[in-house]
Amino acid sequence: MSLLKLGIPKGSLQEATLDLFARAGWKITLSSRSYVPTIDDPEIECLMVRAQEMARYVESGALDAGITGHDWVVETGAAVEELSELIYAKQRLSRVRWVLAVPDDSAIREPRDLEGKVIATEVVRITENYLARHGVKARVEFSWGATEVKVPQLADAIVEVTETGSSLRANRLRIVDTVLESATVFIMNRTAAVDAWKREKAENLILMLQGAIAAASKVGLLLNVHRDDLPAVLGVLPALKKPTISALSDPEWVAINTIIEEAVVRQILPKLKAAKAQGIVEYPLNKIVL
Amino acid sequence: MSLLKLGIPKGSLQEATLDLFARAGWKITLSSRSYVPTIDDPEIECLMVRAQEMARYVESGALDAGITGHDWVVETGAAVEELSELIYAKQRLSRVRWVLAVPDDSAIREPRDLEGKVIATEVVRITENYLARHGVKARVEFSWGATEVKVPQLADAIVEVTETGSSLRANRLRIVDTVLESATVFIMNRTAAVDAWKREKAENLILMLQGAIAAASKVGLLLNVHRDDLPAVLGVLPALKKPTISALSDPEWVAINTIIEEAVVRQILPKLKAAKAQGIVEYPLNKIVL
Amino acid sequence: MSLLKLGIPKGSLQEATLDLFARAGWKITLSSRSYVPTIDDPEIECLMVRAQEMARYVESGALDAGITGHDWVVETGAAVEELSELIYAKQRLSRVRWVLAVPDDSAIREPRDLEGKVIATEVVRITENYLARHGVKARVEFSWGATEVKVPQLADAIVEVTETGSSLRANRLRIVDTVLESATVFIMNRTAAVDAWKREKAENLILMLQGAIAAASKVGLLLNVHRDDLPAVLGVLPALKKPTISALSDPEWVAINTIIEEAVVRQILPKLKAAKAQGIVEYPLNKIVL
Amino acid sequence: MSLLKLGIPKGSLQEATLDLFARAGWKITLSSRSYVPTIDDPEIECLMVRAQEMARYVESGALDAGITGHDWVVETGAAVEELSELIYAKQRLSRVRWVLAVPDDSAIREPRDLEGKVIATEVVRITENYLARHGVKARVEFSWGATEVKVPQLADAIVEVTETGSSLRANRLRIVDTVLESATVFIMNRTAAVDAWKREKAENLILMLQGAIAAASKVGLLLNVHRDDLPAVLGVLPALKKPTISALSDPEWVAINTIIEEAVVRQILPKLKAAKAQGIVEYPLNKIVL
Amino acid sequence: MSLLKLGIPKGSLQEATLDLFARAGWKITLSSRSYVPTIDDPEIECLMVRAQEMARYVESGALDAGITGHDWVVETGAAVEELSELIYAKQRLSRVRWVLAVPDDSAIREPRDLEGKVIATEVVRITENYLARHGVKARVEFSWGATEVKVPQLADAIVEVTETGSSLRANRLRIVDTVLESATVFIMNRTAAVDAWKREKAENLILMLQGAIAAASKVGLLLNVHRDDLPAVLGVLPALKKPTISALSDPEWVAINTIIEEAVVRQILPKLKAAKAQGIVEYPLNKIVL
Amino acid sequence: MSLLKLGIPKGSLQEATLDLFARAGWKITLSSRSYVPTIDDPEIECLMVRAQEMARYVESGALDAGITGHDWVVETGAAVEELSELIYAKQRLSRVRWVLAVPDDSAIREPRDLEGKVIATEVVRITENYLARHGVKARVEFSWGATEVKVPQLADAIVEVTETGSSLRANRLRIVDTVLESATVFIMNRTAAVDAWKREKAENLILMLQGAIAAASKVGLLLNVHRDDLPAVLGVLPALKKPTISALSDPEWVAINTIIEEAVVRQILPKLKAAKAQGIVEYPLNKIVL
Repeated sequence: MSLLKLGIPKGSLQEATLDLFARAGWKITLSSRSYVPTIDDPEIECLMVRAQEMARYVESGALDAGITGHDWVVETGAAVEELSELIYAKQRLSRVRWVLAVPDDSAIREPRDLEGKVIATEVVRITENYLARHGVKARVEFSWGATEVKVPQLADAIVEVTETGSSLRANRLRIVDTVLESATVFIMNRTAAVDAWKREKAENLILMLQGAIAAASKVGLLLNVHRDDLPAVLGVLPALKKPTISALSDPEWVAINTIIEEAVVRQILPKLKAAKAQGIVEYPLNKIVL
Repeated sequence: MSLLKLGIPKGSLQEATLDLFARAGWKITLSSRSYVPTIDDPEIECLMVRAQEMARYVESGALDAGITGHDWVVETGAAVEELSELIYAKQRLSRVRWVLAVPDDSAIREPRDLEGKVIATEVVRITENYLARHGVKARVEFSWGATEVKVPQLADAIVEVTETGSSLRANRLRIVDTVLESATVFIMNRTAAVDAWKREKAENLILMLQGAIAAASKVGLLLNVHRDDLPAVLGVLPALKKPTISALSDPEWVAINTIIEEAVVRQILPKLKAAKAQGIVEYPLNKIVL
Repeated sequence: MSLLKLGIPKGSLQEATLDLFARAGWKITLSSRSYVPTIDDPEIECLMVRAQEMARYVESGALDAGITGHDWVVETGAAVEELSELIYAKQRLSRVRWVLAVPDDSAIREPRDLEGKVIATEVVRITENYLARHGVKARVEFSWGATEVKVPQLADAIVEVTETGSSLRANRLRIVDTVLESATVFIMNRTAAVDAWKREKAENLILMLQGAIAAASKVGLLLNVHRDDLPAVLGVLPALKKPTISALSDPEWVAINTIIEEAVVRQILPKLKAAKAQGIVEYPLNKIVL
Repeated sequence: MSLLKLGIPKGSLQEATLDLFARAGWKITLSSRSYVPTIDDPEIECLMVRAQEMARYVESGALDAGITGHDWVVETGAAVEELSELIYAKQRLSRVRWVLAVPDDSAIREPRDLEGKVIATEVVRITENYLARHGVKARVEFSWGATEVKVPQLADAIVEVTETGSSLRANRLRIVDTVLESATVFIMNRTAAVDAWKREKAENLILMLQGAIAAASKVGLLLNVHRDDLPAVLGVLPALKKPTISALSDPEWVAINTIIEEAVVRQILPKLKAAKAQGIVEYPLNKIVL
Repeated sequence: MSLLKLGIPKGSLQEATLDLFARAGWKITLSSRSYVPTIDDPEIECLMVRAQEMARYVESGALDAGITGHDWVVETGAAVEELSELIYAKQRLSRVRWVLAVPDDSAIREPRDLEGKVIATEVVRITENYLARHGVKARVEFSWGATEVKVPQLADAIVEVTETGSSLRANRLRIVDTVLESATVFIMNRTAAVDAWKREKAENLILMLQGAIAAASKVGLLLNVHRDDLPAVLGVLPALKKPTISALSDPEWVAINTIIEEAVVRQILPKLKAAKAQGIVEYPLNKIVL
Repeated sequence: MSLLKLGIPKGSLQEATLDLFARAGWKITLSSRSYVPTIDDPEIECLMVRAQEMARYVESGALDAGITGHDWVVETGAAVEELSELIYAKQRLSRVRWVLAVPDDSAIREPRDLEGKVIATEVVRITENYLARHGVKARVEFSWGATEVKVPQLADAIVEVTETGSSLRANRLRIVDTVLESATVFIMNRTAAVDAWKREKAENLILMLQGAIAAASKVGLLLNVHRDDLPAVLGVLPALKKPTISALSDPEWVAINTIIEEAVVRQILPKLKAAKAQGIVEYPLNKIVL
């Protein structure tokens, strides 16, 4: 049987990833006695791998595919194919920036002020490339973590990942510049990506993952409307996707079933009611493939 | 931009309130570093306020609106408008009674037996009004909490809030009389209530909150039925709201989609089956605006 | 009023059982001060009873009905009626085997090697019947639990319950034979089973429990399809149950609503998309009565 | 090397037993992957065994010694030697009574009222012996636990273990009679008990366990006293054990070091101060062998 | 038998108080079913009472004695006797200040700037007395808690309790003035305080509580020293209390036993070693009455 | 004031280190809002630093001293002074080995079999030095953690830290060779080490840390003995350190106070009793400086 060797990111993305796979239809079980998870699909073999090491192992072919951050693809310089972004968690690596930051009261205001300074970071290569682009010479030191607390005692500046900047502010740090933007990506080994079976398996997997991601922020909306009020009601609904209009046994009325962003329901529902829609019901969704 | 200043009750109602707002479509986030929550609606500014103090601050205009108990509106004597009851939690303030209670073996049997006694309570004004209505003179002492355990050592009677009375019984207390019935209410400052924008914002908010409250105890029911069996099946469904009957591609059959109380499903499903309904499916709901 | 006295299994099945009843429409509340739970149905009286003792009390009429394992019905030899299997939890008693097991390096290879040996087990009667069937004489000792760790120091073999065998393997035990297969069953007292009211009450209860069990592994699927593509789309859907096809206001299109196993969605969705289905939506279910 | 095979009670006494051994000087470690604990003494091999089964395995010689309740020695009728009581935990088996109990409103007032009734209990043999002593015939049913809640629905009376009776009162049960008093005991196999090495090993173990038990409720007391005040101070100290009086470099003064029950310190300290003792210090103890 | 009715503070001081009583020799047990604790001394009856209400109930004689904060004695204006400060916990009420605080950027710089302002506080009487002392008129509003977050939206200034000021700084508040200093106190009803038995009981209780408090920050130190080195060693030891010097069997040597503050051990031990002390041992203490 | 800048290891050693400092007399408090801890000694400034980075920052002078593993001193090649081993925790870095390990069924049996293979490790430099010593060429890849699970899929061999080897066995790995032995060490910057004040401060700190470490495995023993029995009793006590013998007021008796390993108490106590020692008491210790 054909087999897709798939790397699942250990650590900060792990729980959200396992949850996403469950919602997409794959149950991955971590045994307490082993780091090799089981997955209820005989065509996939999983391995838990650090996000930082994922691209390296996908490049070498030890894995056919994996989920990691775009940043670590760049940092390792691994030659892999990025098939799809997966924006599924309000957590590290999902949609983040690596920023150059200094203490609030530092004299460093722009990249060239770094000349001759010490910079602590987990992404040494990304930082060195950034310095080279700005023609600046500085010492870049690998940091094992807790990088924010290294300035000013142990370093002059840091390059650190942030989503909202709140952790940096809490440490009284000021952002000088954005070094790299990143998001979670589904990557594939270049040889595996041209194997027909593996490619299709990967694409179907992505289809389901994206279906689950889409459903998480959307809801279904059911409502009845008199044919006379149909234009007004349709005018209120977002134009994104044509709603499904079905005939009712009472020929004067139709039923509308549509999918909308959960975030806009609170704006649309009062308008639907004003437009004389009746029996409005919002229901939850598991997956969406439009 | 216009802004609605909204008070969210801290304490026993807090978690249920945040959960209700989330289901209604507003995400309120409490930071661990601040008591001022963020809300994902630029038209609303939230403040966490004790239920006991809410009416006072809505009256003064420090807040435009707030959620609190009817009891605290009465206790503070605040001149505010009560727009809507919100029955959303099996918890304190949701639907409660303030009762006059005494030890099981107390000689106090009716209000007039309180003459000259000591009463401990968190609602001094409500209790004094109650005594005045009964023409009784007694000393009312403010209690900082744990009022049930103050009799008989520290007081002769208490006026305490209760939902089911079980906490009182567990403390071997006997209820003598109901002093005030109360429920959670959405209140509004009288000036704000006649501001068109604020009034509409508040009413739309209430519409969504009530939509989420209604959905919590109801479910959707889908079923197919042969046209010959339609009268029998419709006879089984509650008459509350006309169900949606839609045409199927097989003209002999119709599909029914209806909303019913979850609590009656267990009675109705066996009858629907007996009436030859087919493919009966119950599904969960997020919001309902009938 | 008529009353069904119902035994709920305490212990390993308890939480899953209360959860199943909640999904089926009955809320059972365990008070911390009493072992007699309350249930929100005046026609049912619950009692928490050990699975091991359930059949005995249903046989004697102390209970009209109960939920227990088929194994304990056999072990106690109780004369009760088994109305329905209930496969609702990946836990003990749900679908299990009692097996004869020995240490990996034991010389015991088949039942007759047990002659003259000591066997520890919680099911003394089942084990003795098994030995009698094989014409073997051995000493069977009642074990109060932790039976797996009794070999080889305290016994030569054990008869122990297992679902996947993993606990046995972890204790370095080898399965010699299956002694009894078992599942959770709804049992009824023979006299109660012929009482018309109690019988119907029990069957309606089972209908709802099975409805909730069925819904847990299934989902609803909604999709739109052009009439030209209908045969191809229907060809992809499992033949289990005819899907509901409804007319849309656009006569060229129809909507399909169907129920399928959640486990196959990941295989079917890509095929539905390939067959030109549109607006595919998967939604969760509470109960199903097909 | 000689080896003492020792049974440690699993379950309610387990944690207190492991703690006692630690205080006595033996560290027993339970691995999460095995039920066979390790002990830091090459002369002892431990096995975790249910208190109910301990005496049976000590009798058969599978274990040389074990810790269990006197009640289970009686219930199993095992021929073992009871070397010492160990009163080390305010928990089950430590110092308990098995009592005959009935519902508060039961008509059963004395043992002979049990004639023809159903009694549920975990100790069938003890109960049957008790009935025989009273010349009463009744049905005794083995109960798998939660015996208190079986009356009145499932049994007329119970024989249940109790320490303070509070659990029985909470279940509205009345104690009719005491059936058996019991305490935790250190038991030994009769053959092992006459093996010189095993006997000495067991007795040294008991010496240390008793030393740790004694220290748990006692404290050391140091104080200085002028020779003139010595008689008064000694008059205040309990006469249990002669205190140690040592010479100080100032010949007018002596120091007293003594061991007393922690529970009486609060009575004695004020009196010592009144008797002019100085520099009174209470310090904790690990072990005591007087 | 004589009885001392003693109030134990509920809430923030509760756990530390029960722990202190345990170390002093009294075990107080809170039942989950009752708010009336049991204490293992038939001469004492405990009642859990809020610190805020304690003084009021001691004044009325409902309690003979109690533990509360000096601030609440002042706030309630209760006529009680303060027998002793008890500094036993790094927690609220132990050693605190009530301060007048305003937002960092407020224009209020000194008490007279409060004229006409709104002040929120839990201690209305203390605040009003403070204003009167400064001849300032302002509105003082009772706050049910979370007072820090009421400025600037709901009040202009607050009077709030603080130990280190860190919670105020975290809320960006500035301290303008100290209104009252307070500590935990043992208070007594004035009539009870002249009852010989109750007075002695209370004083013995305080003696033991202070003995346990003293021991918590002190340790015992044992060491041997050659007579020639005795002056040097004694010169290093704090002069607080004369150490106990005892004769050893070797007449050239003496042993020293002394009690010192744990906090200074790290300074003294190196000096003792330098002064040729030998066999230096530090051991823990339970109680000290010097 | 002079100041010692001290690095405390973050991560696996952190909790044990803070506990050790507390027992030694220094309270270090980690704020939830900052990674810079406070310490109750104005002469010390703490910084939380990863064990891996400690030696680098001590070498550069950013820190005067720090606690880390000897392995990380070697791996970073930092030129620092190792003042003292600190064996205080049964945890990582305390007393460990870095070993070369391979899967149980690997063909790799000795170092030279590594030729041309891939080795994953956290200690790249240590591993490369090891290979150089054996004249072997292999690729050494930095591993971000979970190294054990990388063979055989992602690497041929690993160099990993282990204390007992049990984690390796659980992952079915075989140890081929020991690469480096390591323990926790107190390191100092070379310039700081010759500053008189800093050196003395560091040595006093080590004295107290070692005093607390020594006390953790030892206890005090007090006993009385008749002069006639003194030789026999002294013969039983370990010869490590002369016990303190003091005169009692009864000239026939002496008291002995000695310090012994807790682990041998269980062997010595029975012998002391046999030698007629009386009133034997074991008490706990906080610190020992012999």
